[in-house]
Amino acid sequence: MESVYLDHNATTALDSQVLEAMLPWMHTQSGNPTSRHSYGRASRDAVEHARTQVADACGAYPSQVVFTASGTEANNFAVKGLALAKAHTLGGIELNSGLQILSSAIEHPCVSRPALAMQSLGFMPRAIAVNQHGLVDLVKLQEQLVKSTALVSAMLANNETGVIQDLAKIAELARAHGAFVHTDAVQALGKISLNFADLNVHAMTISSHKIHGPQGAAALILDKRIDIQPLLHGGGQEKGLRSGTENVAAIIGFGLACELAVKRLKDFASHTATLRDQFEQGLKVLDVTIFGSQANRLPNTSFFAIHSIEGETLVMALDRKGYAVASGSACSSDSTEPSHVLLAMGVDADTARGAVRVSFGPHNTTEQVAEFLKVLKTEIARLRQLTAIAA
Amino acid sequence: MESVYLDHNATTALDSQVLEAMLPWMHTQSGNPTSRHSYGRASRDAVEHARTQVADACGAYPSQVVFTASGTEANNFAVKGLALAKAHTLGGIELNSGLQILSSAIEHPCVSRPALAMQSLGFMPRAIAVNQHGLVDLVKLQEQLVKSTALVSAMLANNETGVIQDLAKIAELARAHGAFVHTDAVQALGKISLNFADLNVHAMTISSHKIHGPQGAAALILDKRIDIQPLLHGGGQEKGLRSGTENVAAIIGFGLACELAVKRLKDFASHTATLRDQFEQGLKVLDVTIFGSQANRLPNTSFFAIHSIEGETLVMALDRKGYAVASGSACSSDSTEPSHVLLAMGVDADTARGAVRVSFGPHNTTEQVAEFLKVLKTEIARLRQLTAIAA
Repeated sequence: MESVYLDHNATTALDSQVLEAMLPWMHTQSGNPTSRHSYGRASRDAVEHARTQVADACGAYPSQVVFTASGTEANNFAVKGLALAKAHTLGGIELNSGLQILSSAIEHPCVSRPALAMQSLGFMPRAIAVNQHGLVDLVKLQEQLVKSTALVSAMLANNETGVIQDLAKIAELARAHGAFVHTDAVQALGKISLNFADLNVHAMTISSHKIHGPQGAAALILDKRIDIQPLLHGGGQEKGLRSGTENVAAIIGFGLACELAVKRLKDFASHTATLRDQFEQGLKVLDVTIFGSQANRLPNTSFFAIHSIEGETLVMALDRKGYAVASGSACSSDSTEPSHVLLAMGVDADTARGAVRVSFGPHNTTEQVAEFLKVLKTEIARLRQLTAIAA
Repeated sequence: MESVYLDHNATTALDSQVLEAMLPWMHTQSGNPTSRHSYGRASRDAVEHARTQVADACGAYPSQVVFTASGTEANNFAVKGLALAKAHTLGGIELNSGLQILSSAIEHPCVSRPALAMQSLGFMPRAIAVNQHGLVDLVKLQEQLVKSTALVSAMLANNETGVIQDLAKIAELARAHGAFVHTDAVQALGKISLNFADLNVHAMTISSHKIHGPQGAAALILDKRIDIQPLLHGGGQEKGLRSGTENVAAIIGFGLACELAVKRLKDFASHTATLRDQFEQGLKVLDVTIFGSQANRLPNTSFFAIHSIEGETLVMALDRKGYAVASGSACSSDSTEPSHVLLAMGVDADTARGAVRVSFGPHNTTEQVAEFLKVLKTEIARLRQLTAIAA
């Protein structure tokens, strides 16, 4: 049985047009872009074309695009690199102690954990609080910025709730205190309009496999005036900022996926918002909490908890019925801890354990949503009965 | 005109069987391996199957395989991670000063440059000398090991000369002085038999796109008893050692490419050695130096210089005639400096500037070699005449 896929914030299917564009580079010999022969030059040209497509999709210049192999790598590069670059401008590594790295309490672990790791170099990682709607508390941020801060990192759209931050405002506050600003925009690309220049940040992470591009490609969009050290040292690719043979086919796919994402943005937004609204309308008759629903959210994301039913249990039950949904952020699903995003929003641990995320994609239909709601209701009733018997 | 590809040490064409195995994961929805639904579990199972294939191909246990996105990433992870791990066992970061990181003078920059970068943390990167044959000078290594050494890194087979080191001996010396040992075996996999246990190293890098696998997958084979810190922090994939959503299709391709490489090893070695010998026999009538020819070399690699002709010029001339060869290591071809490998072997800079690398693959033929030799001779004569006129 082919399941109905409702987990597009975790990963998306490769677009057939994108695959088509990649295949010629996989079917026949393609060169190492650093090689000077015709194979190498063809690969180099293709990579540079993709760089333009990626830049165009997010309001950046091609020269600001640093390709990486994943969003995680781009976030590690940004957090570690920008913190060290700021320390360097302030007089070197001895000064690190006392320099804050502020990241919002709802960041993906690939931002918060690199920040924590910088503690060993004397930095002070600190979380920025969010309010009950999942929005960064700007007053508290302002207070925290009084101490020397190397970097403020806040994600543009949250992977679990879909809540969208006022990044330009965050950037304004951070810049006023001399800090660098980074945003993880992985979940925003292709779902809302995205403009690097307007956000006024120093660096922004985007990724291919969340927008129907291949895995293995992502980018850090970077203000190149910053003297940042690479995370990956070696052959000097990406103007010395990110070494490693370019993943040519994946980068080509990423470029086209970016172009298509922008073209399809309006349709995506209206289509998935319709499905999401239909879904949440249907949820209302159940004893349910919808997280972040009072904030500006991504159109495709619904994060909710059914009272007294564990999210994990519900996810497995729905999987058996042919629906693929998530119980929390996919990347931390090895853990049984309640979502750190919800805890940061002040949700109690019991409610947070009930959290289930549905994230719609362009190929989902209203029929699927209607059918899914029926199945969800049946499963909830069944699970409630089991719980009642067990109790 | 389709060129004859003679640059297999730079990158290789994706094997059609490997592509076939990858396509089902690219044609339809595939899950994030961390997701708990059926899509996610299928991806997880596929990644674990590939892990077994990779381990089997290089005499390791599946649990020792840490997937990365590139050889460069694996080498950065190894060099930085092992150096810090050793410093940690010796009492923490304050002790770094005085701790050596030894890497051979002929390493790829993705080993030597991470080593250099560790200088900012107080480590002392030092090059290990090689002799005129391109072999690590074991006496000098022994002398260097007298000082506290965190790590010795020496590549198993050199990408330019193809010269193969006595790694087990290097490892024995390093271990006797309490140092960790890493080897970059990227060029060795699929060309000579490879056994992690026999090499007695703590970590070994291998990569997919050098063995007709896809780009975007590589691995660090790692002695897991070492308390190593990740280079990429985040969602905790690869048992916390390398975060980032797994590149499922690429890893699947890498696994199969490893399996095929082992199956085809004997044929590859005898076939390419025949071509290489035929080629070098033909070279003899020219005024040529063949580098590393007195040492144990990879079967497919010939690195030579034609007297008084610049390698770069010859590479471009051959490219126009339909032959793709390299003038040095592909990854540093942006540079016009003579090969650091040759300089380390005591070759004078003028001769080194003439260096051209031919690296054969399984689909090259004796007819191609014969034709290539003819073209080479013609081009050399033409270039000599141009030089004579210019002089």
